[in-house]
Amino acid sequence: MKILIVNGPNINLLGIREKDIYGSTTYDKLCKEIENSAKEFSLDIDIVHSNVEGEIINYIQNALGEYDGIIINPGAYTHYSIAIYDALKAVSIPTIEVHISNIYNREEYRRKSVIAPACIGQITGFGVYGYTMAMMGLKEYLEK
Amino acid sequence: MKILIVNGPNINLLGIREKDIYGSTTYDKLCKEIENSAKEFSLDIDIVHSNVEGEIINYIQNALGEYDGIIINPGAYTHYSIAIYDALKAVSIPTIEVHISNIYNREEYRRKSVIAPACIGQITGFGVYGYTMAMMGLKEYLEK
Amino acid sequence: MKILIVNGPNINLLGIREKDIYGSTTYDKLCKEIENSAKEFSLDIDIVHSNVEGEIINYIQNALGEYDGIIINPGAYTHYSIAIYDALKAVSIPTIEVHISNIYNREEYRRKSVIAPACIGQITGFGVYGYTMAMMGLKEYLEK
Amino acid sequence: MKILIVNGPNINLLGIREKDIYGSTTYDKLCKEIENSAKEFSLDIDIVHSNVEGEIINYIQNALGEYDGIIINPGAYTHYSIAIYDALKAVSIPTIEVHISNIYNREEYRRKSVIAPACIGQITGFGVYGYTMAMMGLKEYLEK
Amino acid sequence: MKILIVNGPNINLLGIREKDIYGSTTYDKLCKEIENSAKEFSLDIDIVHSNVEGEIINYIQNALGEYDGIIINPGAYTHYSIAIYDALKAVSIPTIEVHISNIYNREEYRRKSVIAPACIGQITGFGVYGYTMAMMGLKEYLEK
Amino acid sequence: MKILIVNGPNINLLGIREKDIYGSTTYDKLCKEIENSAKEFSLDIDIVHSNVEGEIINYIQNALGEYDGIIINPGAYTHYSIAIYDALKAVSIPTIEVHISNIYNREEYRRKSVIAPACIGQITGFGVYGYTMAMMGLKEYLEK
Amino acid sequence: MKILIVNGPNINLLGIREKDIYGSTTYDKLCKEIENSAKEFSLDIDIVHSNVEGEIINYIQNALGEYDGIIINPGAYTHYSIAIYDALKAVSIPTIEVHISNIYNREEYRRKSVIAPACIGQITGFGVYGYTMAMMGLKEYLEK
Amino acid sequence: MKILIVNGPNINLLGIREKDIYGSTTYDKLCKEIENSAKEFSLDIDIVHSNVEGEIINYIQNALGEYDGIIINPGAYTHYSIAIYDALKAVSIPTIEVHISNIYNREEYRRKSVIAPACIGQITGFGVYGYTMAMMGLKEYLEK
Amino acid sequence: MKILIVNGPNINLLGIREKDIYGSTTYDKLCKEIENSAKEFSLDIDIVHSNVEGEIINYIQNALGEYDGIIINPGAYTHYSIAIYDALKAVSIPTIEVHISNIYNREEYRRKSVIAPACIGQITGFGVYGYTMAMMGLKEYLEK
Amino acid sequence: MKILIVNGPNINLLGIREKDIYGSTTYDKLCKEIENSAKEFSLDIDIVHSNVEGEIINYIQNALGEYDGIIINPGAYTHYSIAIYDALKAVSIPTIEVHISNIYNREEYRRKSVIAPACIGQITGFGVYGYTMAMMGLKEYLEK
Amino acid sequence: MKILIVNGPNINLLGIREKDIYGSTTYDKLCKEIENSAKEFSLDIDIVHSNVEGEIINYIQNALGEYDGIIINPGAYTHYSIAIYDALKAVSIPTIEVHISNIYNREEYRRKSVIAPACIGQITGFGVYGYTMAMMGLKEYLEK
Amino acid sequence: MKILIVNGPNINLLGIREKDIYGSTTYDKLCKEIENSAKEFSLDIDIVHSNVEGEIINYIQNALGEYDGIIINPGAYTHYSIAIYDALKAVSIPTIEVHISNIYNREEYRRKSVIAPACIGQITGFGVYGYTMAMMGLKEYLEK
Repeated sequence: MKILIVNGPNINLLGIREKDIYGSTTYDKLCKEIENSAKEFSLDIDIVHSNVEGEIINYIQNALGEYDGIIINPGAYTHYSIAIYDALKAVSIPTIEVHISNIYNREEYRRKSVIAPACIGQITGFGVYGYTMAMMGLKEYLEK
Repeated sequence: MKILIVNGPNINLLGIREKDIYGSTTYDKLCKEIENSAKEFSLDIDIVHSNVEGEIINYIQNALGEYDGIIINPGAYTHYSIAIYDALKAVSIPTIEVHISNIYNREEYRRKSVIAPACIGQITGFGVYGYTMAMMGLKEYLEK
Repeated sequence: MKILIVNGPNINLLGIREKDIYGSTTYDKLCKEIENSAKEFSLDIDIVHSNVEGEIINYIQNALGEYDGIIINPGAYTHYSIAIYDALKAVSIPTIEVHISNIYNREEYRRKSVIAPACIGQITGFGVYGYTMAMMGLKEYLEK
Repeated sequence: MKILIVNGPNINLLGIREKDIYGSTTYDKLCKEIENSAKEFSLDIDIVHSNVEGEIINYIQNALGEYDGIIINPGAYTHYSIAIYDALKAVSIPTIEVHISNIYNREEYRRKSVIAPACIGQITGFGVYGYTMAMMGLKEYLEK
Repeated sequence: MKILIVNGPNINLLGIREKDIYGSTTYDKLCKEIENSAKEFSLDIDIVHSNVEGEIINYIQNALGEYDGIIINPGAYTHYSIAIYDALKAVSIPTIEVHISNIYNREEYRRKSVIAPACIGQITGFGVYGYTMAMMGLKEYLEK
Repeated sequence: MKILIVNGPNINLLGIREKDIYGSTTYDKLCKEIENSAKEFSLDIDIVHSNVEGEIINYIQNALGEYDGIIINPGAYTHYSIAIYDALKAVSIPTIEVHISNIYNREEYRRKSVIAPACIGQITGFGVYGYTMAMMGLKEYLEK
Repeated sequence: MKILIVNGPNINLLGIREKDIYGSTTYDKLCKEIENSAKEFSLDIDIVHSNVEGEIINYIQNALGEYDGIIINPGAYTHYSIAIYDALKAVSIPTIEVHISNIYNREEYRRKSVIAPACIGQITGFGVYGYTMAMMGLKEYLEK
Repeated sequence: MKILIVNGPNINLLGIREKDIYGSTTYDKLCKEIENSAKEFSLDIDIVHSNVEGEIINYIQNALGEYDGIIINPGAYTHYSIAIYDALKAVSIPTIEVHISNIYNREEYRRKSVIAPACIGQITGFGVYGYTMAMMGLKEYLEK
Repeated sequence: MKILIVNGPNINLLGIREKDIYGSTTYDKLCKEIENSAKEFSLDIDIVHSNVEGEIINYIQNALGEYDGIIINPGAYTHYSIAIYDALKAVSIPTIEVHISNIYNREEYRRKSVIAPACIGQITGFGVYGYTMAMMGLKEYLEK
Repeated sequence: MKILIVNGPNINLLGIREKDIYGSTTYDKLCKEIENSAKEFSLDIDIVHSNVEGEIINYIQNALGEYDGIIINPGAYTHYSIAIYDALKAVSIPTIEVHISNIYNREEYRRKSVIAPACIGQITGFGVYGYTMAMMGLKEYLEK
Repeated sequence: MKILIVNGPNINLLGIREKDIYGSTTYDKLCKEIENSAKEFSLDIDIVHSNVEGEIINYIQNALGEYDGIIINPGAYTHYSIAIYDALKAVSIPTIEVHISNIYNREEYRRKSVIAPACIGQITGFGVYGYTMAMMGLKEYLEK
Repeated sequence: MKILIVNGPNINLLGIREKDIYGSTTYDKLCKEIENSAKEFSLDIDIVHSNVEGEIINYIQNALGEYDGIIINPGAYTHYSIAIYDALKAVSIPTIEVHISNIYNREEYRRKSVIAPACIGQITGFGVYGYTMAMMGLKEYLEK
């Protein structure tokens, strides 16, 4: 079971960026934790990151035929990138949307995900542990 | 670690109710699965259900001093019960919101949770397995 | 043919309540008229009333397997109870929505029924006679 | 008791037009059924149809002093013809609005009737049988 | 100086129609008064009326080259007939919009005229005397 | 002079609930203070509480013929319970709405009371002392 | 017959101010023309001007018992001064609202008058001649 | 292949009407050009025009069984005629919507077509040449 | 304890102004009643009135260091004067907002106070007695 | 005559992507068809594609002085890329917007093009044949 | 080069007023700093202040022919004073809008300036130094 | 003091792009002027440009630890790039937003900056001179 993990804009500043919202775990540490959880769940994963909307679309398009599932944290693109939504619909790979913070407890404009309707489900507010939960949820989904 | 699981209106019709949206697992089966997962995670749980908004508030108020965490599926009250939101804020017990279906892929009015801002996080779209994920997430949160 | 008639909040104050809007027929008299019409149409009916949203849901859930049709006057819950809408969708019993007053000629917020999309049809503005018309319409529907 | 029945735009295509929404009864058949019901209720009726908003207004204006009641299915004009609303208010003849489909379960813009506030009541979703119900309701109203 | 006076839907019911809003002067009387005022101002006028939006457009189109000015009371079409607006812009004849009642003191939807931007000016609330004022205003405008 | 005091959802958690907003007076203490003030004003009072919207409606309906006035703190139901509004209109007993916090200085959705139009007046932001003011205001009103 | 003419903010800059919109007649010239027309109609008038919202209210309040009618051009206060609206309602003197430009053919926010519902009628778009028309309309109204 | 070309309100004033927006080609010239293109594409066409919404509906209804395709320029009815939309849905003949000007570069209210969802496609902004393109597109569609 | 009582636009017309809404007590009588109540509560008060928004701001600014509390009835400025709100925030003197009528039972635009968030609390609907209640509430607040 | 054809995000997945909406023609096939049509119309074309908003802007900027016209299918960027709109306005090269599907018959957010106002015209709903129509339309425009 | 500096409501409370937002520089100090900067830039300035909207308009009107430029901080009038906007348009003197705080990082209603469209430019968020920047910008503009 | 100047999409077309809005200074000239001003203020600057949203984010992220301040002209991304806002919040470097044109005097959608709340202040409408002002403002801010 091969899973692609896509991190969007500014996720790479984790641990530096607004720590009261996103916590103090660094991006490197996040990647480590994801890899550890992946091993535990026997999942074969790749982690990619880009600040560029179109490159995120490239990653999603290239996943076609290569991965069984996608876990995506689209960062701020969550709120307006219909293009990423379209890419997910186009490749039709089971996808889970993860957010580190509880986006429903923040600014009004962060409470809407244009990407969610293209996903199986969404996990928000569990910090970096949300990725682990997403892997669990995706595995469960793919084995059904 | 004692967890209260609160199911809101019409969750008890699971397996009967619009199966294309909510799946065919019955409510009894859901309770069983929750109990099994709880054992696995060594969590002490109680499951309650009510169709009455005010009774759900009663359950939440009575949880004060009795439970370490709450997992709530507020059903349709998700979208308008500021009273349940207030109850959660009042007791201040760590709470996770679960939805069986992906509410962000349905009618516009289902895409808004007035309860989410009172919760740690939200899990949507994973079917009955969402409860297991919520227990995992809540345990992780409480042990931090 | 067994029909459940569900009256929502404040319908029981009929004849006392804002008579210029709802008329002077009392609730008891309404029930009598319904029973008379039911006899005329050879329908087996039960009339229930509750001011509690969740109890109305209970009545609807319990109707499953017991009644062939529902006639509902959801009172003020018409305008916000997605939970009652969900209950009607869940049990999937043919339902007719009745309003005593013409809700489309009143305050803006009364002109929207969140329950209507779960019903076969709606009858508004005919006073207590609307229940008789609903029975007629429901019978016609069930016999088709 | 003389009743005018006014059918608006595209009602004449009944049985041809989107059958999954409006059913397969043809317009001729509808007229027959209305006439039969009228006889049964001892009502003297005339049925008119027009696709032209202004001609519908003409029919309503000419009803003044000629008819005791009006049953109107304004078709798509339901949603924007303030001019038809004004005509009904101007002649002040008791009027019932009928819709074959349940307009409250369709596109958002069909859920609003600008004509309803000029009517006694509204009947929606009962197919062609709605006209029979309207005659019953109108008779009851006029005899009160 | 030749002026066309165009009366829209239901204006012909003046004196019959909601007298508390529109007054008790009949349409015939209105026409008389207009003709008297026209004589006084030495204006050559024609008065037309139609309930049909498209016929009003025909009248406007035919005015091209025939009339120096238009006075229009578009009735309910005031609020939605972009087609009449377009006709006035197309013929580019100086036009004055008249309303018998004060439309800014009525229902919200009557407070907006889609036709006004195609006119020189608007006169509202002066009852039938508004037509006289419009003639005065139009004459002043044309003589400038 | 007999007054019914109705407290809505979560008011019973006073002193426990978000103290920075609602203060540290407990619900028991609030009841005591109300009783003391009542004595001072020679008012005969009963205090009831419920978290259930429909039970609040029951209390209001049962007040008919029993009480001369109502003081209500509808808690979160303030913002959406048209059913409670309807109950107050139905019984037509002079009613005062009280809020402990200044609801106009909080979240946007708390700034709207759907219940206020059914009341004589509203008192907000004076903490538990607002109940005393309400009794004073109600007495003044009833003695006029 | 005594008439007060009230000019609001920036009307005094007529002839200087955006001439393509308001024309090149100066304020002094406007006052002259008004006085000439007043003589012609045998009206006793006073013209006042202020840029201060509250002074306009003072003028309106002081008109009580002194004037039979008011003609007001509220300038930009048209669009937001509920206080001027209140003053007009309070004194209850027949009032006509005049605008030099066609406010319905300008920026969206200029198309709404909060003052109009307190007036008999409104005249817009006739340039300075609108004042003459207003005097005519007011005279007609007062003599009725 | 038989095609009906329907022109809505004010299209007949082409060449006279706001030339900076619609160009200087007259309506007669437009009809000629359409006929020439039709010959070139071997299409059998009829061109009709009406300013009356209901007559446009009549033309569409009568096209049933007579034409293989429709090209419609609904003029201002584009923006509000749900009745024309309904007629097109009712007859279910492949239809193309044409606009001479680029409606998406004009007033906000012109940027919305309520008719477009009933059509195969839409062509806007190409002047009178849009009709030729529409014929090409319709032919391609019908031959597929 | 020194209190400034500020009355906004048109409050001075009390007893003259729309008596069905504001009652028949005159402004002089109101001032008397306030002074009597003040004596009873041992409060040292000054009452000021202005129709000018900026003068109300002047009064508030000058209160700094002179008064312990403010009672304000901002009249129509309630609904739009952010400048008065700013003045109250700037001086930071405990303030109570009073309205004679129940503003929540009137026109939509009267249901919003932009000033309320700068106040301790608000009292609406108790007629002139609201000022007495405000003094009571302010005294209680200042003595806490 | 040199034409640049710019395809935006996910257009390259044509034939793979949601075939019920976009058809089964692959992107390679689309390019072939475009080239064939180009030959037929004697147009010199280049086709570019990018998923990156900024690269599309680069393509447009580089077209300056190189191409006589642009045909653009902006994919999802249609709905929010003001930056692409700005680029088209900046270079001021005649541009045509093409959409394969009828965007006016899909989700509400797809019915708005922020790019359209920078284009001559728009062609939607004709599948891959729309590109051929665009070339025809652009040629006609450039030869005028 | 003569510049008028206009300070609106509550600016005179600088250093007293909400210091966390506006800083601790007093109004006197602000005036000093402005005068120092003016000397440095060889500008002849006058500083005026008023809390009264209409007086601000008076200052602007009187600037006509007296000043080459205006720097305005309209305080709260920024958000609703169309009358000040009109005054600036009327006199047509180059004007710069200054705000001490970053209004785009505050309450939603502060993020909109109705005055900005009448100005050359706007400077926000630089504290009292914004006035210096405005003088620089205005000088540059006038010398161009 | 090291300052990064970031220019967003289409700024590089300055002098070519809509000159009536943006002026005729070319981008090269702009850079020169910025460099000259920087020297004058003894600031060490780097100027970067990109049309790609994500590359702008890259520039901002890389500024961390390298620059003391940022001056950004986000071009069209101003209006929707929450991702750039997030980047600025993440790096927390003092930033000033500059716009060449007065965005508050243009299309409605250009009047909103989603980036402004992450900045110290904003300068709009001063043409290329705005950059000089921004440097002045930033220097002042950093030296405080």
